[in-house]
This record gives sequence, C-alpha cells and structure tokens, in this order.
Amino acid sequence: MENVIRVGIVGYGNLGRGVERSIGLNPDMHVAGVFTRRDPASVAPLSEGTAVRAVEELPALADEIDVLVLCGGSKSDLPVQSPQLASVFSIVDSFDTHARIPQHYAAVDAAARAAGTTAIISTGWDPGLFSLQRLYGEAILPQGETYTFWGRGLSQGHSDAIRRVPGVAAGVQYTIPSDDAVSRVRAGERPELTTREKHTRECFVVLEDGADADAVREAIVTMPDYFEPYDTTVHFISAQELARDHAGVPHGGFVIRSGSTSSEASQSVEFRLALESNPEFTASVLVAYARAAVRLAAAGDHGAKTPFDVAPGLLSPKTPEQLRAELL
Amino acid sequence: MENVIRVGIVGYGNLGRGVERSIGLNPDMHVAGVFTRRDPASVAPLSEGTAVRAVEELPALADEIDVLVLCGGSKSDLPVQSPQLASVFSIVDSFDTHARIPQHYAAVDAAARAAGTTAIISTGWDPGLFSLQRLYGEAILPQGETYTFWGRGLSQGHSDAIRRVPGVAAGVQYTIPSDDAVSRVRAGERPELTTREKHTRECFVVLEDGADADAVREAIVTMPDYFEPYDTTVHFISAQELARDHAGVPHGGFVIRSGSTSSEASQSVEFRLALESNPEFTASVLVAYARAAVRLAAAGDHGAKTPFDVAPGLLSPKTPEQLRAELL
Repeated sequence: MENVIRVGIVGYGNLGRGVERSIGLNPDMHVAGVFTRRDPASVAPLSEGTAVRAVEELPALADEIDVLVLCGGSKSDLPVQSPQLASVFSIVDSFDTHARIPQHYAAVDAAARAAGTTAIISTGWDPGLFSLQRLYGEAILPQGETYTFWGRGLSQGHSDAIRRVPGVAAGVQYTIPSDDAVSRVRAGERPELTTREKHTRECFVVLEDGADADAVREAIVTMPDYFEPYDTTVHFISAQELARDHAGVPHGGFVIRSGSTSSEASQSVEFRLALESNPEFTASVLVAYARAAVRLAAAGDHGAKTPFDVAPGLLSPKTPEQLRAELL
Repeated sequence: MENVIRVGIVGYGNLGRGVERSIGLNPDMHVAGVFTRRDPASVAPLSEGTAVRAVEELPALADEIDVLVLCGGSKSDLPVQSPQLASVFSIVDSFDTHARIPQHYAAVDAAARAAGTTAIISTGWDPGLFSLQRLYGEAILPQGETYTFWGRGLSQGHSDAIRRVPGVAAGVQYTIPSDDAVSRVRAGERPELTTREKHTRECFVVLEDGADADAVREAIVTMPDYFEPYDTTVHFISAQELARDHAGVPHGGFVIRSGSTSSEASQSVEFRLALESNPEFTASVLVAYARAAVRLAAAGDHGAKTPFDVAPGLLSPKTPEQLRAELL
C-alpha cells in the first residue's frame, strides 16, 4: 500500500465539507488541512481533527501536501486559483463553465507543466462523469445521438434567479426531465427535442408580506433564458414548508446514447445518477480524481488533464492486480 | 487526422461480422482482411471489398496491419491466439472467462512486452463497459454495494444447455433481471439478494417428434448450475415460431452502485445497456479499443492492458482539443 495521500481542501462551503466527509471514507487519504480566505478562527470543520488555516499559508506547505482539491466557484475563484495553485501543487478542480473549458485548460496546463505538477480539471459529474459517458457512447456507437437530461434536481443558479424577483422572500427551483422525452429517447426514436420538450421547471416560492402572487408568478415564468424557454410551474408555500421540505440538495440526470450498428439493430447505452446530495457526490468524484492526480504526478505525467485523459484504474485504491481479479 | 487504421479481423462468426460492420461506421478505420481457419474460398464477407485469407498468412503481414481484433471464443481460441498473435501484432480481444483473466493477462503481457506490441484484453461489455462502471462506482462511493444484473437477453451458454436435453429439437433461453430486485436496489435498500431473487430464466423449446413435454421441462428446470438455482419458465413452441420470434440476439443489463456519502445522503449510479444485437454491440466496443491499442502502441506503451488501463479519450477518433470543446 502506498503512503497515505495528504489532501488539502481549498474553500469550505458545501463542496469543501463534502470533500472532508469523502476523505473520511477513504482510508488511503488524510485531510492535511482546510484552507480558507475567511478568518480561520471563524470556520468550524466537521471533524475536530481537521486544521483550518489561511489560504495564504499554502505556498509554504508544498512538502506537507500531496494534492489540493479546489472547492471554489467556476465564475471567479477557479480561473484564478487553479493556475496559481497548480504552479506549486498537484490539484483537482470542478471547473464547469463549459464554454470556457479550453481557455481554463490552457492556463492550468501552462502553470502545471512549468512547475512539474498534475492538474485534473472539470471533474465532478457534469462536466465529469456525464462527459465520460458522452465520450464512451459516441466512440462505441458512432451512428447515433447523445441526449443529456438533468434532474430531478435543485438548480442553484435558477434558485438564485427566483430570489432576485421583487416580492420573493425565499425559494428554490427544481429542474425536471420530461418523462415523455426520456421515454422516446429510451425507445430508440432519436427525436429532435426542443428545450421546452426536454425539461420542465418547478419553483417553490415564499412570498414577502403583501406581495402579489400573480405578479411574482408572471415575473418568474417570463424571465428570459432562465424560465421563458421552459414550462414552469410556481407553487407558493410558507417559510416553514420551505425549511421542512426543501432543505436538501438533490440532483442527478441521465446521459443516453441511442445508436444503431446496422439497419436491424438499435442499441441504447444509459447512465443515470440519482443523488440525494449533489455537493457530497461531486466531492466524492473530486476525491477519487485527487488520488489519480497524485499517481500521475508520481509517474511524471505532468500538465493539465481532464477525466478523458485519466485511465479509470487510477481512481481506485486497489492495485491493478486486484482490479483485474475482483472487478473486471 | 491520423492515417487510416488497418484492422485485421481474426475469426468470422457473428462477432467478426459485427466488427466488419462497425469498421464501416468508422471513417478512420479500414478492414485489412478477415482471417479464418476455414477454407477462405468458403467464407463470404459482408462487403465485397473485404479480403478473406487464411489465418496462417498472418505472421507475414506485420507491415500491412496495425491491429488485430480477435473474434474467437474464450474457452479454447483466445487462450492460444491472444498470446501468439500479440507476439507479432497489437491486438484486442474479448476474453470473458472472469476466473481466468489473471492468467490470460499474464500470458498476453509476456508476449506483448517481448514483442513491443500493445494488447487490450477483456474488452466488450461484461467484462468491459460493465467492469468500468463497477470500478467508477466503487472508487467514487466507497461506502456502498455494487449490483450487476444481466438481461433481458439471450444466453448462448444456457441455450446450448437446453439443446442438449433429450427430446429437445431446438430452443433458446432468455435471462431476465427481476423487476422487484432492480427496484429495491434503485430505491437504495442495498438488499442482500440470492441468485434466485436476482434473475429468472425463460426458455422457448421446440420438441422432437414424440418427446414428452413434462419430462423435458423437468430435465431443464432441475439442471444443476444452469437452471436449478433459478425460477425457470419453459414454453413449448413450434419450429416456425422459434424462427419467427427468436432469431435475434438481444441482451443488456444494469450495473448499479448504491452508496451513501453521509448518514443523510444516499446516492445511486446506474449504467444500463439495452441491445438489439449483442454481437454487433460487443464488436463496436472491440473496434473502439482497437483504435486505443494502435495509439498506445505508437506511444510506446506496450504490454497487456485492460479497459481499466485505457484513458477514455483514446477510444474516440476526435482529438483531445475537440473532446474538451465538444464533449466535456
């Protein structure tokens, strides 16, 4: 067995706490510290044994940490942190702004190559596991179509959009894949689906005192990009109901490759996630890729990587011999 | 774009024909020939342009072929052919005798290392894609259980067993996953399931003239290992019905990882295949891994590999840049 992998957690919101929990389930790994931009004294870790330190201390700790798991956001944190920290440490991030992945990759790759570190970007489940399924599906069934459906799940971005509507005190939004669309895809129809046909949106809203429900509903369902392209349902509930029934962060979805190998044979490959905690699952994916990053770095395979570049066996604590005997 | 990959097909049953079809769907690949142990003049390829040659000609063709796809059986063909041919060519096989994978790997690895070739063994869907899902599931959710269900699908081994029963003229057998077991697993119950609870078996049998249906049924359902551990249903049908309704070779199944990341959060990862043609789909997986074998060989990464060792991106004809921009 290798030495225990010392993992630093950068950022300590829901995702960072998920990483701390996940490391606790992996005996070959150890939390080397939580690194925060807040006052470390103000941050209470889940486990008493976890040290909380200032993110500024990191550059001096290159010898004490094998890999950093970056838990910041893709909008403003990771574009700065990933290249910066990859110039000292091997890292894993969950950069998820699809359109900017090529430029993020280039920046991280330059830093990691110069420093001789390994940086796996865009891990998590989409991008991440869903991306892998899109790739496997297309490579195996070149004649076909790939469909990605999200949900049923809480969308943070859409929930934030609801909460900015005047008259809304609080609220959450669930993205829901259309049963009809999923059934048609599974049946091998290979339909062309509009945005409205693929997903619906369901909102649970707490009104401010005296707010006009109809006006709020109208403002939500007509909101461009966020809700207008979808069939959106708005439910008004009490603050108590919101706290009782909507505190979780479930998510999930499907990737379906529907293809054919000859005129007689339709083939369907489906990958499905049903997650009760989106941040804890995402964190678990990041942690598995952290193990891979350490192994790639040790093998001298430096630079930026994505899940496409990482041999599956590197994610597992088991040896290649064990994997062949037990899982193949 | 790389040069077109020249693929030799060794063995020309259902799987070999599926490989020929699959290569026709991949513009970066070309059939360099079908190699058979039969009289080549007696073998008609699907495509007129495909040359059929004697397998004995292979050793002289090292310069004309980039990779061989081995389409023989795991019982007697591949244990001999894979090491033998890996000592001249990069190869891909679908060796599927789970218990003998370690010794097959060792024999192929020795031959491939000595020759400087790359040999990817045990591709296909189980072992193969299902193995990958078992690995990803376990690595990401270490606290959990993995369930593999097969079917609904035609089992060649069980169909052969039926046909050996006295009084049976012809017949097929379908393996069927139990709906109830799948539902319980999906619901996160993590049940301990007996063999009988996971799958049922359904047989469609054509009797010989004068055979005793009750005796045949009894001989089937009590057959040790094959049918006794399962709830088995036997239907008697005519030869015409068998030809009309049971000529296809459908298969598929599920791999489900049911885990938890904390006491509050159950997580479920499911992979599902629904295949109208098992050999054509298996062939498509072999062909994608043939592309990977050629790339690994060109990169000097020699020896035996399994799907666990192959970075997903190597399966796709797209460049890493395209994959990041289009599929991540």
